[in-house]
Amino acid sequence: VKIRHRVDAIAPHEKCVVVCDLASGRSWRESYDHLLIATGSQPIDPELPGREAAGIFPIKNLAGGIALRRELDAREIRRVVVVGAGYIGLEMVENLLLRGLEVTVVEQGNQVLPLLAPELAAQVEQAVAAGGAALHLGKPLLGYEMKNGRVSGVATDKQSLPADLVVLGMGVRPSSELAEAAGIELGIKKAIRTDKRMATSSHGIWAAGDCAESYHVIDGRPYYLPLGTVANRHGRAAGANIAGDRVDYGGTAGTAVTRTCGAEVGMTGLLEKELRESGIEVVSETVQSRTRSGYFPGAGPIAVRLTADAASGRILGGQIVGGEGAAKRIDVVAVAVQSGLTAAQMSELDLGYAPPFSPVWDPVVIAARQLSKKL
Amino acid sequence: VKIRHRVDAIAPHEKCVVVCDLASGRSWRESYDHLLIATGSQPIDPELPGREAAGIFPIKNLAGGIALRRELDAREIRRVVVVGAGYIGLEMVENLLLRGLEVTVVEQGNQVLPLLAPELAAQVEQAVAAGGAALHLGKPLLGYEMKNGRVSGVATDKQSLPADLVVLGMGVRPSSELAEAAGIELGIKKAIRTDKRMATSSHGIWAAGDCAESYHVIDGRPYYLPLGTVANRHGRAAGANIAGDRVDYGGTAGTAVTRTCGAEVGMTGLLEKELRESGIEVVSETVQSRTRSGYFPGAGPIAVRLTADAASGRILGGQIVGGEGAAKRIDVVAVAVQSGLTAAQMSELDLGYAPPFSPVWDPVVIAARQLSKKL
Repeated sequence: VKIRHRVDAIAPHEKCVVVCDLASGRSWRESYDHLLIATGSQPIDPELPGREAAGIFPIKNLAGGIALRRELDAREIRRVVVVGAGYIGLEMVENLLLRGLEVTVVEQGNQVLPLLAPELAAQVEQAVAAGGAALHLGKPLLGYEMKNGRVSGVATDKQSLPADLVVLGMGVRPSSELAEAAGIELGIKKAIRTDKRMATSSHGIWAAGDCAESYHVIDGRPYYLPLGTVANRHGRAAGANIAGDRVDYGGTAGTAVTRTCGAEVGMTGLLEKELRESGIEVVSETVQSRTRSGYFPGAGPIAVRLTADAASGRILGGQIVGGEGAAKRIDVVAVAVQSGLTAAQMSELDLGYAPPFSPVWDPVVIAARQLSKKL
Repeated sequence: VKIRHRVDAIAPHEKCVVVCDLASGRSWRESYDHLLIATGSQPIDPELPGREAAGIFPIKNLAGGIALRRELDAREIRRVVVVGAGYIGLEMVENLLLRGLEVTVVEQGNQVLPLLAPELAAQVEQAVAAGGAALHLGKPLLGYEMKNGRVSGVATDKQSLPADLVVLGMGVRPSSELAEAAGIELGIKKAIRTDKRMATSSHGIWAAGDCAESYHVIDGRPYYLPLGTVANRHGRAAGANIAGDRVDYGGTAGTAVTRTCGAEVGMTGLLEKELRESGIEVVSETVQSRTRSGYFPGAGPIAVRLTADAASGRILGGQIVGGEGAAKRIDVVAVAVQSGLTAAQMSELDLGYAPPFSPVWDPVVIAARQLSKKL
């Protein structure tokens, strides 16, 4: 896709935008009845010492991935440092290891995937280490080292790590500058504030995708979750409303899945920390089981952690880490969260069993049963 | 496990059973406070002409599978006829093909997996044929052919099919003779009638597993489904009640999964036929999608068919056929059925997405959305 125009400003009172033709530099005003802001997000990329060095690749979209692959094809790269152990960082680790590279991960937090319960994150860390990557946790990035204009390493607070190439997976932030400059209200994490129909604070202006705020299905709290699923559902709701329909976005359950070095990860609902901060007393339980019948080839480990409201028993969140077939089991928890099932109701679910797919009692049901005993 | 004793009769009025010691032939009466009947089911194996031939293997449990494997190891077998294209028959087909055998399937119905909608069954038939098995549908088994006391073929109403070995996968029926002889009430398909606590019609006598009736979660109708999940859940409820607790079995949603020749199959809820017979007007929709993001290695086809109550929009059933990762997606439909979600609610579900696991819109959600448009 060749981008020809850029919107430089929004004038909500005049109901128009200032458009710039990138080839000629010419600008003009374009009026609108409805305006959809879908500016997405951008990778976090702090201005640290040495950032001007060549060979540092923020990864956020397809273009970033293609640029990185071109560099790997064109140069003799041996040592790669991945900064950040979130989804994108860990997915890059898997693929860099597949290319036979020496991979080091630098993460300022004390675990990978900061949203995971520590005991589950530890299982992912084991998989990443077993896959061959060196993990440096609890080490903030202080800057980049350079040789002849090219990155030669990264500096943490503890040491210097050599690198022929650096991949940044430090998360994203909403691209909301254009909206902010137009006086449109921002919300949580500086995402554009929206109502359930995806309308912004400015009449006739809508927002959708990674630039826009969501709300959580459990308690309606404003929530920012820059994921493809959320963005798609935002877009559908915003589009329907712009076309004259009245459609509410159904809310975000916080469901996400990822895979790295043979470990599958899934999560849904609110985090225990988020629930406790809202004054909700919660009970959690983690069970260890198998992805398939124990005797069936390919049966792998799976850990399921469920969290319920201590008062009502309602399932408010879940996390899964395990081998092949583990991650998408989070969908069962996601539906339970979105349907308001209690742990006891969930422990009675009739789910599919055959040896290639599951033990007789699905690990998610085992977790619900164990959790319901604590309630 | 060596079986030493057999129960020959139940005397409910005297609260005792007649036990026979198999080694000595000695019999005695054993009294009980509570009696659990867990006699399971037996493979359907009609007394057709030539049934006395050696080399005919009904498959139902581990012992049957072991006997079959011993025969395959010991003899020179080339051509196998599998009678019946249900779960067990088709699972046997996959494994016989893996052993390099010539496999022919004879099924009296006009499709494989009689519970599947015909368009989905056709996709399974394609996979079985592509896997190398010959399918003879709509052909009832009339008898067995024999040479020197050993099976040499099977006869259908159309032709004779040569066979060095015959596998029977014609379904099972509850082993309820002992209960029936004791005057205990039988229910649907001659399974032992039970209430929600798994109590039979006779005080102090309980039943669980493949010998016992279930009820369906959707409308409470008596339902017979001889599956491991149901049997396990029966046993848990019966055991709790015998131990003095008051526990209801949570009901059967009809969830089942299987795999054959690379085709995964899942189903849940009531069948369209069963619903129509109860006077419920239903609407169904089938969508074709992919198991993973289209560009991701290993993305396979998936067909999802959902059925809803035309009046309320509530999801009452679903069926899935597809490649790797397809079958267990039925669990999302199973939770929706058990939670009473409508097609519109289901189309708003926030499920897990990442390219190795799903397209951005999970096929189950796409099906719910398409279905909700027809409601």
